[in-house]
Amino acid sequence: MEPVCTVVGHVRKSETGDTWIEIADKFWEAALQIERFSHIIVLWWITGRDNPESRANLSDYPPQENAELSGVFASRSPARPTPIGHSIVAITKVDTEGHRIHIDQIDAHDETPVVDIKPYMPSSDKVDDARVPSWFKDNVPRYTS
Amino acid sequence: MEPVCTVVGHVRKSETGDTWIEIADKFWEAALQIERFSHIIVLWWITGRDNPESRANLSDYPPQENAELSGVFASRSPARPTPIGHSIVAITKVDTEGHRIHIDQIDAHDETPVVDIKPYMPSSDKVDDARVPSWFKDNVPRYTS
Repeated sequence: MEPVCTVVGHVRKSETGDTWIEIADKFWEAALQIERFSHIIVLWWITGRDNPESRANLSDYPPQENAELSGVFASRSPARPTPIGHSIVAITKVDTEGHRIHIDQIDAHDETPVVDIKPYMPSSDKVDDARVPSWFKDNVPRYTS
Repeated sequence: MEPVCTVVGHVRKSETGDTWIEIADKFWEAALQIERFSHIIVLWWITGRDNPESRANLSDYPPQENAELSGVFASRSPARPTPIGHSIVAITKVDTEGHRIHIDQIDAHDETPVVDIKPYMPSSDKVDDARVPSWFKDNVPRYTS
């Protein structure tokens, strides 16, 4: 049995800079209580890399300076066997009538399929003092001071 | 085009309590440099809930005391439209010869298919001061003090 994802909505970006996830009407019930969380984990499909060549890519050089050749399990390369994107984002507004979850930003294009949303829970998702290789140490932090 | 995941390995648990991810030989190259990270994000397939009934589930009561009815995007319920699991775990040892990534724990059974592994990067994955509903506030933190 193949692991086949269900598309539950799409990333939308307006020309004025608004960003939201438009949940398909039939899945809106799944967003009940989501406004009680400040942040969510969005799993999305990297459609632009869902081709045999990109899915056969196993290692490449991360774009950071001085990065060493890295396997795709040790990088966020979009070209990987399962082209699934993972973004932690902040909820800015929940539009119950429009079935939209407005968010602050996401590294995904307009119309990108979203396959799952999970609430961000510090108890399981936050790691203090995680170690990363030197080439990722200067990445600009998004939600930490 | 359906979003179909690639199985890159499996969770393994020994009777003595060892836990690891066994990467399929053809995908081992993707683990290059993974030992430079202390933690990884493991995406796995919840095979026990990959059935039409579970995938039609959109809301239920989280097991925590006083939890209110919640959509599955606002809970970690395994019964959800895309039955994908998300675990942040600590790497304890990388066995290059055996193609195994040993980890401290994972909320997945022995033989669970793993569909992707991403490195945990504080810059994008760590959120200070995330808000959660009251029923999740007493969850025991795993990697924070």
